[in-house]
Amino acid sequence: MLKIGIIGAGRIGKVHLESITYHVPNATVTAVADPFLNEETRAYIASFGVENIYTDYHAILDDPSVDAVLVCSSTDTHAAISVEAIEAGKHVFCEKPVDHSLAKIQAVADALERRPGVKFQVGFNRRFDHNFAAVRKAYDDGKIGEAHILKITSRDPEPPNPAYIKVSGGMFLDMTIHDFDMACFLTNSDVEEVYVNAAVLVDPAIGEQGDVDTAIISMKMANGALAVIDNSRRAAYGYDQRAELFGSKGMVATANDTLSTAVLSNAEGVTGEKPLFFFLERYMGSFSEEMRQFVAACENDTPVPVGIHAGFQSVQIALAAKKSVQERRPVKLSEIQ
Amino acid sequence: MLKIGIIGAGRIGKVHLESITYHVPNATVTAVADPFLNEETRAYIASFGVENIYTDYHAILDDPSVDAVLVCSSTDTHAAISVEAIEAGKHVFCEKPVDHSLAKIQAVADALERRPGVKFQVGFNRRFDHNFAAVRKAYDDGKIGEAHILKITSRDPEPPNPAYIKVSGGMFLDMTIHDFDMACFLTNSDVEEVYVNAAVLVDPAIGEQGDVDTAIISMKMANGALAVIDNSRRAAYGYDQRAELFGSKGMVATANDTLSTAVLSNAEGVTGEKPLFFFLERYMGSFSEEMRQFVAACENDTPVPVGIHAGFQSVQIALAAKKSVQERRPVKLSEIQ
Amino acid sequence: MLKIGIIGAGRIGKVHLESITYHVPNATVTAVADPFLNEETRAYIASFGVENIYTDYHAILDDPSVDAVLVCSSTDTHAAISVEAIEAGKHVFCEKPVDHSLAKIQAVADALERRPGVKFQVGFNRRFDHNFAAVRKAYDDGKIGEAHILKITSRDPEPPNPAYIKVSGGMFLDMTIHDFDMACFLTNSDVEEVYVNAAVLVDPAIGEQGDVDTAIISMKMANGALAVIDNSRRAAYGYDQRAELFGSKGMVATANDTLSTAVLSNAEGVTGEKPLFFFLERYMGSFSEEMRQFVAACENDTPVPVGIHAGFQSVQIALAAKKSVQERRPVKLSEIQ
Amino acid sequence: MLKIGIIGAGRIGKVHLESITYHVPNATVTAVADPFLNEETRAYIASFGVENIYTDYHAILDDPSVDAVLVCSSTDTHAAISVEAIEAGKHVFCEKPVDHSLAKIQAVADALERRPGVKFQVGFNRRFDHNFAAVRKAYDDGKIGEAHILKITSRDPEPPNPAYIKVSGGMFLDMTIHDFDMACFLTNSDVEEVYVNAAVLVDPAIGEQGDVDTAIISMKMANGALAVIDNSRRAAYGYDQRAELFGSKGMVATANDTLSTAVLSNAEGVTGEKPLFFFLERYMGSFSEEMRQFVAACENDTPVPVGIHAGFQSVQIALAAKKSVQERRPVKLSEIQ
Repeated sequence: MLKIGIIGAGRIGKVHLESITYHVPNATVTAVADPFLNEETRAYIASFGVENIYTDYHAILDDPSVDAVLVCSSTDTHAAISVEAIEAGKHVFCEKPVDHSLAKIQAVADALERRPGVKFQVGFNRRFDHNFAAVRKAYDDGKIGEAHILKITSRDPEPPNPAYIKVSGGMFLDMTIHDFDMACFLTNSDVEEVYVNAAVLVDPAIGEQGDVDTAIISMKMANGALAVIDNSRRAAYGYDQRAELFGSKGMVATANDTLSTAVLSNAEGVTGEKPLFFFLERYMGSFSEEMRQFVAACENDTPVPVGIHAGFQSVQIALAAKKSVQERRPVKLSEIQ
Repeated sequence: MLKIGIIGAGRIGKVHLESITYHVPNATVTAVADPFLNEETRAYIASFGVENIYTDYHAILDDPSVDAVLVCSSTDTHAAISVEAIEAGKHVFCEKPVDHSLAKIQAVADALERRPGVKFQVGFNRRFDHNFAAVRKAYDDGKIGEAHILKITSRDPEPPNPAYIKVSGGMFLDMTIHDFDMACFLTNSDVEEVYVNAAVLVDPAIGEQGDVDTAIISMKMANGALAVIDNSRRAAYGYDQRAELFGSKGMVATANDTLSTAVLSNAEGVTGEKPLFFFLERYMGSFSEEMRQFVAACENDTPVPVGIHAGFQSVQIALAAKKSVQERRPVKLSEIQ
Repeated sequence: MLKIGIIGAGRIGKVHLESITYHVPNATVTAVADPFLNEETRAYIASFGVENIYTDYHAILDDPSVDAVLVCSSTDTHAAISVEAIEAGKHVFCEKPVDHSLAKIQAVADALERRPGVKFQVGFNRRFDHNFAAVRKAYDDGKIGEAHILKITSRDPEPPNPAYIKVSGGMFLDMTIHDFDMACFLTNSDVEEVYVNAAVLVDPAIGEQGDVDTAIISMKMANGALAVIDNSRRAAYGYDQRAELFGSKGMVATANDTLSTAVLSNAEGVTGEKPLFFFLERYMGSFSEEMRQFVAACENDTPVPVGIHAGFQSVQIALAAKKSVQERRPVKLSEIQ
Repeated sequence: MLKIGIIGAGRIGKVHLESITYHVPNATVTAVADPFLNEETRAYIASFGVENIYTDYHAILDDPSVDAVLVCSSTDTHAAISVEAIEAGKHVFCEKPVDHSLAKIQAVADALERRPGVKFQVGFNRRFDHNFAAVRKAYDDGKIGEAHILKITSRDPEPPNPAYIKVSGGMFLDMTIHDFDMACFLTNSDVEEVYVNAAVLVDPAIGEQGDVDTAIISMKMANGALAVIDNSRRAAYGYDQRAELFGSKGMVATANDTLSTAVLSNAEGVTGEKPLFFFLERYMGSFSEEMRQFVAACENDTPVPVGIHAGFQSVQIALAAKKSVQERRPVKLSEIQ
């Protein structure tokens, strides 16, 4: 039974608390730390049978009975806490992005080099989604041959508060970062070059923050495939999350998930349901699965499914994308250090 | 917090134990009874924190702290245990069918009349399935107008062991009984008359047991709608569970659920996934939902969503269907008492 | 080049005139006869280069240069004209139903026995529809194994004028007759027994004419398969024409045709187009194909694809269906002579 | 009745001959010219009732009874013949591309300026396809609001003979040119800038000809929308022709056409048909419709639906795309003159 401490009791921390309790055998959450705990949150955490609730996460790191920690704090603290946890000999599951600075992510990688027994997994949950996993499996099984073209559609149902942009680092770092990781995952390849065609079409206030809200991102993959991501901060019909991988022997493509398969035919047309609303509805299953695999890697001392390289590269691609928008040219990843 | 005792620790009893533990707030399983407990099952039950494990279910009925019981024992004991539990003042959730004998089901109804405060729900879980619930909701919302034609497709992936037929009472009582209840649920109406066109096309051994394995069941509903169910004991592509309700203003129809939306296009064609394998995969969500609603009815003293009338009528239809096959004529439900 | 005369210049006669002219190589329409020709119709016919336009169809039968005739007159004249044409040595393509009386259809069959060189095809155009032909082909190719269950959905977009019922013989003879033929075609088998569950749910005026407008028709096929047809005189979403054939190795099913594949996703849902409006839109391609195959059979002296047996049996099933409604019991085809 | 002469009796010339004869009222082909006529082609042309068959197209231009000509000769002669025909006062329908040289296309535009009564239509038939027309109609009807993202998928079933590349000008001029026109048509906007990510993944011999066979083409439209085209010279599952237009209020998307809607479910999965094989199958209806609209514009003296601007711009985009591949940077259309 892996004993887990959760650092940060915000939305995603609670998701993991619930997942581990209900859907992950062989693991239990014994401690949660958050500097801003109110009574409601304390009661919520206690209702899951968590014995230790702290405001200072060091209490978790100092507890020898804790095997692994989940770093679910604010992004700017991910890297530093991860390094501390690694040095304390705890396995680490760190939410994405690891940091906005490649240097800080590298510092985590360096810490891991010094503690080879420690597991470190990045929270790219979409790799564990049933649809995207089926695309990768079809590819791995040779069903589509060599990868030629990857297309990812990723559109949010609603734009964020423009004030959030400053904190998040912008669309490429807070939203597309998942798609960058998907591009690598689905083609099983790194990215070599990025070109972005972007605009502010959804909300001028986003433009005033120096960011974009609509983009077509064209990439060259290291294995020769071409990839394209299209993003929008607002799809009127909801959360649009699809992928299509085309290769020498065929194509595998996914559609959106819906609450039911019911289709209504009437004088207006033949109407099915909109996609599931947002990431908590759409990807709930993937949050459990990523945690099961993290726990399995810790318990069995096997490689984690999403390591520090994925955490580093996704940010590197995001920074290349930002540079491409600024300089209006294709940018090689090797330019971004 | 509703305290629940489970009587019968077979497959479906375990499903409910897991559902209540993980997916039903405000309820906890405090006792399980089964006369045939082995060590493995005891350990499994204990792993959910169940404190009291008995071989005799009377220990549950005698425990004043238990609020409700789930009757998950063999079908021939459902009615008698239910009557005992009702008389002990426990709320009852009883698996389907309540019994093969209408007289015994009536005895349960009579017991309920004598204990008006006791809740009694029958385990027709498909009413809580996301797809079928969406059909009924569309109907309730007036989207299709008056109901004219209901079509239910219900095909199992594999036939049962022919020996099971004797115990189960045959296809209409062990398989179609769900579809009979669905017909009533989806049209929000009782059944008046049944005509069956049946055959043995899957397995001659089933015919040797005096049963059929393929059927088209045509029904008149009390509200004037026509309904048809088609059944097969074996669909080569898996568990086929669909419904289509056609009315004066339109139609609502469902498709099968699949593990993912991935579709492979290659030289052979454009291929999607087969339906989810069988009822545990297909209907898992509905098992949790029926239990949440049972618990809510007990806690709030509100009507249960599936009462004894549904339990009685579904068996009545099944018996009418058997008579229709024997006598090769339409049979009115009023003939079956 | 087969020289064809068309007897009857109503809607379907015009359809064949256009089909033969534009879509059937090796055939040409040289004569059209209709007792009620107005100037507009004469001009329409002439625009296709038809040289001989008559009011009396005997002029066509007397013309030795005419190889084949299409009998597109009113139903009550089909059989008599067909017999005359056969006796004149003309190949005959006769619209459906051949007659409402089995005796009169038998008279046509008898005439054919006396003239073995004459081809006689019945106008069951749906056999040539791309979707239904694909179902039969999958069956013939062994893709679904033995046929177990056939389901046909056939719903019109609008009910006929109630006055038409008297002329047409009712829903089973004017509408379902196509579905009866489809049942035989798709299972490649005759029908043995029919049971009908019917109602008047669309238009009370249809009931006043002694007919029904909604039906579920359950049939036993001679090859052991079970079949069911569901009919409505009015589907709010348009012309609904689908078939599903289920067998020991799998299932083949069709969807409706639409004008385009465009799907609109917006705040209301994900909406595709309604089915093509009615039979002229839906089945236009099949009218050309049935004519091409008729011409080929005449030219090559090969068997026609839809002979007098299909014409006879479809009416026999319709009469059995009417009897089943009247007597509320299953009716064997052997009862209908 | 518009009298039409066809210049060039190759594949596309024959398509138009058949379309006009069978599917275009108010027009007739009275003359065909081709320098390489063999007996078979002469007989084919004559079978449509064409009276005048020439080897020299000047005979058509010199015939005062001819109202309009279709320029279906080899691409390098399109512009010169068009100018001659315009100067002869004939309406012109010219196959795409008008030329590989913008200067020559401009010469056609200049000729048109001098003869304002002459109609000139470019053969971008896909604008008249039922699916793509439905996308544009949804946009024109305001169903998707402002256009934000356009995605076009265009993949051929088989690569051309590498020798063809030299003649055709390469993928962007022989294949993508249709997609460039679609991008303008579907967004109702011109293109401002193009960036291409391309590779040789299908056939090295294509690379040896200096061309690419796989590409992702990212574009900025003049109306602010972003557009992306993905191309492959070989899709293992056949001709893949889809479009998706996403805007402020929703999205409209199309799927591929198939021969039938039949879907086979068996132990391997749920399999539908592959797309229609290639452009003659997929786009046959659009060839008739473009001709009907050309004839209507000539007869009614109304604007043609696809004018010389579309012919010019599509080539301009193709040349920009080639430059983008060579120089590995985004290229503005204003750079290409």
